[in-house]
Amino acid sequence: MFKNFRSVEKCAYGRGSFDKLGEILASRRQAQNPAMVFLVDDYFKDHPLAQKLPLQAGDHIEYIYAGGEEPKTSQIDALRDHIRQTVGLPSGVIGIGGGSLMDIAKAVALMLTNEGSSTQYQGLNLIQKPGVYHVGIPTISGTGAEVSMTAVLTGPEKKLGLKCEWTVFDQIVLDPDLVASAPRDHWFYTGMDCYIHCIESMTGHLKTLLAKPMATKPWICAGRFFWAKRLAKTPKTTKSSWWLHTSEG
Amino acid sequence: MFKNFRSVEKCAYGRGSFDKLGEILASRRQAQNPAMVFLVDDYFKDHPLAQKLPLQAGDHIEYIYAGGEEPKTSQIDALRDHIRQTVGLPSGVIGIGGGSLMDIAKAVALMLTNEGSSTQYQGLNLIQKPGVYHVGIPTISGTGAEVSMTAVLTGPEKKLGLKCEWTVFDQIVLDPDLVASAPRDHWFYTGMDCYIHCIESMTGHLKTLLAKPMATKPWICAGRFFWAKRLAKTPKTTKSSWWLHTSEG
Repeated sequence: MFKNFRSVEKCAYGRGSFDKLGEILASRRQAQNPAMVFLVDDYFKDHPLAQKLPLQAGDHIEYIYAGGEEPKTSQIDALRDHIRQTVGLPSGVIGIGGGSLMDIAKAVALMLTNEGSSTQYQGLNLIQKPGVYHVGIPTISGTGAEVSMTAVLTGPEKKLGLKCEWTVFDQIVLDPDLVASAPRDHWFYTGMDCYIHCIESMTGHLKTLLAKPMATKPWICAGRFFWAKRLAKTPKTTKSSWWLHTSEG
Repeated sequence: MFKNFRSVEKCAYGRGSFDKLGEILASRRQAQNPAMVFLVDDYFKDHPLAQKLPLQAGDHIEYIYAGGEEPKTSQIDALRDHIRQTVGLPSGVIGIGGGSLMDIAKAVALMLTNEGSSTQYQGLNLIQKPGVYHVGIPTISGTGAEVSMTAVLTGPEKKLGLKCEWTVFDQIVLDPDLVASAPRDHWFYTGMDCYIHCIESMTGHLKTLLAKPMATKPWICAGRFFWAKRLAKTPKTTKSSWWLHTSEG
C-alpha cells in the first residue's frame, strides 16, 4: 500500500515554549480576521495557565468539559456554529488539553471551512477543503492525538474519525511544564495507552519497517517511566514527564 | 533557547514509492507554469531510474556531477539562471541523488524566488521569501540532507548553509530500492557519517531531551547495519538498506 504521510508542520518544544505562543501565533493572524479561538479543557479555567494565554482583542476562549464521553459530532457542529456567529471565520484554532481537546480542535478547524454536519465527513478523505490554521498543545502525555491524522468523533450512526491530511495540526507546542501538572491517575492511563499502542505498532500484522523503530524507542521511554520503583518515587518533575511526553511522537 | 522546528511536510516511503512520483507531483503542477525541474546525479544518466522519471511536456532534466567538491554558490547561481532562461519559474524542483544533490535542490528552489547571488544568503534566516515547491529523493542513506534545514554551499568567502525553515523539503520519497543500488564504498562512508552524527546528538553539550531518543534509535539501526559480520555477508538487499535508510531521520 502506498503511503504519503503528512507531518505536523512545526513543533516547538522544551520548557518555556508555551510562553512563546503569542510569538508563534503572531505571523498567522490574517489581516481580514486576526482572531484566534482557544479551546481549553475546563480543568484550566481557574488555573494559572489561563492567565498566560496570549489573548488579543477579538480572540475567543471556550472552556470545554472533557471528563465525560468522547467528542460528539453534534458537539462539534454546535461549537462551529457558535464560533461562526461570534467570531466569524477566525485565523486559527488552538486546542489546549488532553486527547479529547486535541480532537475537538482538529475537528472544529476542519468544520469551519467545510459546509454541513461533521457526520457527513466521518471516514477517510471525505473532507473537501483544508481547515483553518490549527495548533495543538497537549497537557497530558501519551494520547498521541497531537500527531495523529484523525479526529475521532462519536456520531448518531458511527464512531469514526475525520481522517485526512488536513486533519494534522499545523503547529504543536510540547512544554513539559504543562504535563507535569496532570493528575497522576490520568497520567498513568494515557501513558499505558501509549505503551500499548507502541506494542501494537511493533508487532501488528501490518507493521512497516519505518513503524517498528519509530515505536520501539517510545516503548522504551514509556517503559522506563513505568518501572514501578521509579514511578512510585518520582515526583511530578519536568524531567520524568518529559520521558513520557517524548514517547508520544 | 526557543526552538520551533519545521518538519518535512510529506513523506512517502516503502518499496515502489518512487513509482508514485508522477501522482505526487500532479497536484503541485501550477496552471501558470506546470513544469517541474529534475536535478539528478549524473550517475543515473544511463540508469533505468532515468527512464522512470514522470516527465511531462515542458519538464526539464539536469544531470549533475556530484563526485567532486561540495556544491558551490556559483554553481547554484548559474543553475538558477539557466532554469530561469529555459523554463521560467517552474512549479517545483526535484532533487535525486546523494547529499550534494539534496543540497543543490534545496538551494536552487530558494534561489529561484530570491533575487541576487546565493552568497548574500549564506547564514541563518537570511532568505527573504519561500522557495518553489521542492522534493528530495535520496539514493543513498545516511547523509540526512533530505531532512535537514540547511543547504550547505561553498562560497568565495565562506562555507555556510542557506539555513531557514523554507530550506526544508516539502516532500521526500524514501524508496529502499533506490538505495540498494548505491556503490558499497559510498554506502559505508555515508552510513558512518550518520552513525557519528547520532553520537554527536546523543552526547553533545547542547543535546536536548528530544534529540537524545531521536538519535539513539538510528544509532542502534546504523550500528546493527555495521556489525562487521552482517555487513560482510549481507547482499545489497532492500531490507538491509532500509535499516540504514530508516536511521537517517
